[in-house]
Amino acid sequence: MIIVLKRDASDQDITHILDTVQGWGFDTNISRGVERTVIGIIGDESLLRNKPLEVFPGVESVLRVLKPYKLASREARADRTRIRIPPVTEGADPVEIGGQAVTVIAGPCSVENRDLLFEIAQFVKEHGAHVLRAGAFKPRTSPYSFQGLGAEGLRLLSEVRREVGLPVITEVMDTKDVDLVAETADILQIGARNMQNFNLLRAVGRIRKPVLIKRGMSATLEELLMSAEYVMCEGNHQVILCERGIRTFEPFTRNTVDISAVPVIRRESHLPVMVDPSHGTGHWDLVAPMAYAAVAAGADGIIVELHPRPEEALSDGPQALLPKRFAGMMEELGRLSPAVGRSL
Amino acid sequence: MIIVLKRDASDQDITHILDTVQGWGFDTNISRGVERTVIGIIGDESLLRNKPLEVFPGVESVLRVLKPYKLASREARADRTRIRIPPVTEGADPVEIGGQAVTVIAGPCSVENRDLLFEIAQFVKEHGAHVLRAGAFKPRTSPYSFQGLGAEGLRLLSEVRREVGLPVITEVMDTKDVDLVAETADILQIGARNMQNFNLLRAVGRIRKPVLIKRGMSATLEELLMSAEYVMCEGNHQVILCERGIRTFEPFTRNTVDISAVPVIRRESHLPVMVDPSHGTGHWDLVAPMAYAAVAAGADGIIVELHPRPEEALSDGPQALLPKRFAGMMEELGRLSPAVGRSL
Amino acid sequence: MIIVLKRDASDQDITHILDTVQGWGFDTNISRGVERTVIGIIGDESLLRNKPLEVFPGVESVLRVLKPYKLASREARADRTRIRIPPVTEGADPVEIGGQAVTVIAGPCSVENRDLLFEIAQFVKEHGAHVLRAGAFKPRTSPYSFQGLGAEGLRLLSEVRREVGLPVITEVMDTKDVDLVAETADILQIGARNMQNFNLLRAVGRIRKPVLIKRGMSATLEELLMSAEYVMCEGNHQVILCERGIRTFEPFTRNTVDISAVPVIRRESHLPVMVDPSHGTGHWDLVAPMAYAAVAAGADGIIVELHPRPEEALSDGPQALLPKRFAGMMEELGRLSPAVGRSL
Amino acid sequence: MIIVLKRDASDQDITHILDTVQGWGFDTNISRGVERTVIGIIGDESLLRNKPLEVFPGVESVLRVLKPYKLASREARADRTRIRIPPVTEGADPVEIGGQAVTVIAGPCSVENRDLLFEIAQFVKEHGAHVLRAGAFKPRTSPYSFQGLGAEGLRLLSEVRREVGLPVITEVMDTKDVDLVAETADILQIGARNMQNFNLLRAVGRIRKPVLIKRGMSATLEELLMSAEYVMCEGNHQVILCERGIRTFEPFTRNTVDISAVPVIRRESHLPVMVDPSHGTGHWDLVAPMAYAAVAAGADGIIVELHPRPEEALSDGPQALLPKRFAGMMEELGRLSPAVGRSL
Repeated sequence: MIIVLKRDASDQDITHILDTVQGWGFDTNISRGVERTVIGIIGDESLLRNKPLEVFPGVESVLRVLKPYKLASREARADRTRIRIPPVTEGADPVEIGGQAVTVIAGPCSVENRDLLFEIAQFVKEHGAHVLRAGAFKPRTSPYSFQGLGAEGLRLLSEVRREVGLPVITEVMDTKDVDLVAETADILQIGARNMQNFNLLRAVGRIRKPVLIKRGMSATLEELLMSAEYVMCEGNHQVILCERGIRTFEPFTRNTVDISAVPVIRRESHLPVMVDPSHGTGHWDLVAPMAYAAVAAGADGIIVELHPRPEEALSDGPQALLPKRFAGMMEELGRLSPAVGRSL
Repeated sequence: MIIVLKRDASDQDITHILDTVQGWGFDTNISRGVERTVIGIIGDESLLRNKPLEVFPGVESVLRVLKPYKLASREARADRTRIRIPPVTEGADPVEIGGQAVTVIAGPCSVENRDLLFEIAQFVKEHGAHVLRAGAFKPRTSPYSFQGLGAEGLRLLSEVRREVGLPVITEVMDTKDVDLVAETADILQIGARNMQNFNLLRAVGRIRKPVLIKRGMSATLEELLMSAEYVMCEGNHQVILCERGIRTFEPFTRNTVDISAVPVIRRESHLPVMVDPSHGTGHWDLVAPMAYAAVAAGADGIIVELHPRPEEALSDGPQALLPKRFAGMMEELGRLSPAVGRSL
Repeated sequence: MIIVLKRDASDQDITHILDTVQGWGFDTNISRGVERTVIGIIGDESLLRNKPLEVFPGVESVLRVLKPYKLASREARADRTRIRIPPVTEGADPVEIGGQAVTVIAGPCSVENRDLLFEIAQFVKEHGAHVLRAGAFKPRTSPYSFQGLGAEGLRLLSEVRREVGLPVITEVMDTKDVDLVAETADILQIGARNMQNFNLLRAVGRIRKPVLIKRGMSATLEELLMSAEYVMCEGNHQVILCERGIRTFEPFTRNTVDISAVPVIRRESHLPVMVDPSHGTGHWDLVAPMAYAAVAAGADGIIVELHPRPEEALSDGPQALLPKRFAGMMEELGRLSPAVGRSL
Repeated sequence: MIIVLKRDASDQDITHILDTVQGWGFDTNISRGVERTVIGIIGDESLLRNKPLEVFPGVESVLRVLKPYKLASREARADRTRIRIPPVTEGADPVEIGGQAVTVIAGPCSVENRDLLFEIAQFVKEHGAHVLRAGAFKPRTSPYSFQGLGAEGLRLLSEVRREVGLPVITEVMDTKDVDLVAETADILQIGARNMQNFNLLRAVGRIRKPVLIKRGMSATLEELLMSAEYVMCEGNHQVILCERGIRTFEPFTRNTVDISAVPVIRRESHLPVMVDPSHGTGHWDLVAPMAYAAVAAGADGIIVELHPRPEEALSDGPQALLPKRFAGMMEELGRLSPAVGRSL
């Protein structure tokens, strides 16, 4: 960590800083420049991060040298993390997220009823999806909107999972539901609004199933990696990161999908990274182009919503792909993936 | 609700929309303009909001006529909500938030230890603060930062509350802690990161103590009002809204305090609105000017952090006011408030 | 245009609005709903846009039905605009932007000196670039930074253009330089900071060379299309739009490249759309992945910066590709383009 | 400037950096920490800023120690800049911006016609405004909107200025109009969209009249100060900075007025700072509360729009105050200013 002093910092200010920092057990290094004096602190920066050095008299600014994430960082392991989802049906292949293949997660926004879920699950499996998504607990901006079927939704999801033979991902919104959701889900999803629900992150860190964390609408990528760190700290290293659009001033799209999150996360971390172009754009006609962009940029997979009759969808109808459009997108992805060194 | 049709919408598209909407029990009204045909839908718009009209063939856009909040809206009640906090010490005056007087909530970021909390509480009371703030459960970006004293912190807060005779506000982060926090707190705080933790909102809606909701870092004011709606829906109408800075591109401040949130909320809602200039700016030297701005713009109160020795603070030291600066700010507010028609 | 009235709008308010609007020559249509009365105005909306209907007594909000762009809009022409850049060397092929082929524009950030420009131009031509970019007039945040070689830079650019046989694009920053720049440039660039320099837009609208407009850092796509409209209004319909990153809170990247701008512009307009991943990300290691993302999402081309010795670059060194990395990117694009139905 | 090296930087990388930097004439200082080696560079940082140190092999990041502005910075002069506008009528008092008094600039958005301008000028003078504002050249998002009366507007402004005896501020949008505008204007305004029109900044830096620079919609405060630096570099030190709202995701307001810009600029610079709550909010009912907030936060003045018949305004009617509301606001400001240590 580096402390830049004010131009008018006194010798007394400097002595006070050096004494305090050395008292904490760190070495220091002082450099007197033309316009500013700079103090370098040598030692474990993570211990220093919580010290409010900015408020010491004479301090102009404090510059951090290291990234705050450890377990999630690229330096923590040499190779990339690959997350293995065991097959639902005996004898089937496991799904691997973060390897050479692009993973496609697809399904309806919400579990609405058994028949619809079965119909969609069957369809996406036939067209090459690897994991089924569907929400039982739904975070909705309005208390007057459909809030999901809850436990009953999980039960339906569990049935369809077994019958169709697809692993499932579903969202958990409350610490008290983690065990319940983990009984059904092959992957637990932490939604964007809960990316900094730290109790929930710790709770899913204590189970032993993969966790997909969606980036919060105004979260920096550093904060997303710190949320992964919360889960990993508790011992669960099976974390998948998911870009799903950030909030900007642009009104044509519901959010702005930050595709550059993909190469940045690949550089900063060993964890797999996926993209959700459905929530990211909010409009079905933008979903396929953004899915192609994600894969071309190096994403380990995509997560998309579809509905056979969007006019009747209980949530997020405008962003749902029609099944035939999902099928078309899968065909395109089948051509695109090998051109960027991946398989589908 | 108004549906704007595409220029090339067919008669069949129009008939399909009219039939469906009328089948849901709404009246319709069709207006054929020079470039576009427009369908007005007459009836309870809140029932229509969940229908994905955007996906119907021939629809270009859907325009909503009404605001989505009801209980929180200005139209829901004629006068402004005043929230009464009963006195802690028998015979003392109650605190009223949302009335003619400006309410000052002050205290340390976190409960660190008994003595420090007592020292600060005593000081802020002497200088005119009405409510003591201090966090026992702390949401921290990093799992390696001080996470608060938890239940032990609540116990200390409870003791100091009684001894000093100041009502307290403290944050609740998890549905499972709501009852515990409500035992100590006179006001429960929902932090910015939990503004859309809907289960938590419902949970605090079921108790009968005032709730202060901080605006999420990327939440629109409409979403903030919808979060109030979640609490009010459950029967708890004692909701205070709090602007605490939104995330923008500006690096000089930790967040950008949106002072215009104050007059907008006063126009849109009957609920009291406060401002937190400490988290809003992240720098102690900006706290007082922004507190004055908040009161001048019509805020019902401010919530600020102070610490006698910021160099030793376990969290958010850089934004903590020194006690003498807090005292100076209170004097200035004492001059400013009457000039804008308020008392302190 | 649709006027939503306040719940308590009086009959007098309504009569005043109807009379005024009819006095302007529009037809009206009134619909009385359960909670609100709504007035539809029938006629040319562009004439109404400048009327401050929001301030009429009793008006709650004004909803616009049509998009404000006309010449730039999808409805203005059936096919997509293809812009033809005549060959520099007689007998060579023209470059077409907006057709089936992906166009690659490449070069140094600035014209630094003749030899360097020649070296880069030669290299990018050999590796398949279609147009050479290089700035003679440079917009720089600091007056103490290199400001470009100006007229001398244009002269060098003109020489290299002829010798190497590549059309060139370069920025014009001032109305007084439009003619000068147009003498050399095959395409004139309007930089992000000048996207709403309306005099400059009109000035380049009066020449008869293609114009590439970069999206402003905080410009909505509607505003970008309106800037195109300024150019087209003056008679110059050869406009190319370019996404180059918008300003958000994310610090890992200099800007956030909004890849969804590509499919949105293709839906809203007939004009070609390109992406600049160099300025968009600010880091050379993110340039190639974002170039692939742009092409996969449907961009008509990319514009990238390279430099053989970034350590010596006079501007934007950190985002410059090394020549060998540019060559690698071109190879990848050669594989990717056909997989998404384009040629390179 | 400080260079943080990658964990795996080689000795050769370090030698290369040291040699290069020393070759440029700087001293260096190397500090080997537990996890990273850090190189401090001693010398004039402004000379280093343009060197792309980020691209040197082995470099992880480059930390700047100094602020990039010099003439505009607090360190450049001990006292605050006070800008004196000579009186229009002989014998009248000059206006001083940046002193103890709050300056009020008011007027219509545009010069529409002589009578209206005279009526408004007379009114604002009677109610205590110090400077008249009105646009002759108008930057408008749409080419189909009223573009201002141009030179004829300046002529009318000049007449009214003399007759009413109020100094005027008006916008200049093009380098070629600087001399023309400077003939009439007592203060030249650089609009938000031109904050980084560097040629225009240089041009107004060469005249000897005060210049008010509005913050761009997505400009950081550092960038705003750098734009002031462009003007000051050319010899014109009479610069006023103006916060007028930044672009965020919040739709209730046209922009988000960043009131914290006021104390930040006062800390970072000696230049006067004003606030424009009319453009900042876009709604007349928010103008007065935000004007109070600005003054309470320490602004040296406000700039507001009014119109006697907003229904007929040719531009920005929705944000125009009615004269009676302007008069009311002035009365409130008369009470508020002394309470915060200012006069009006």
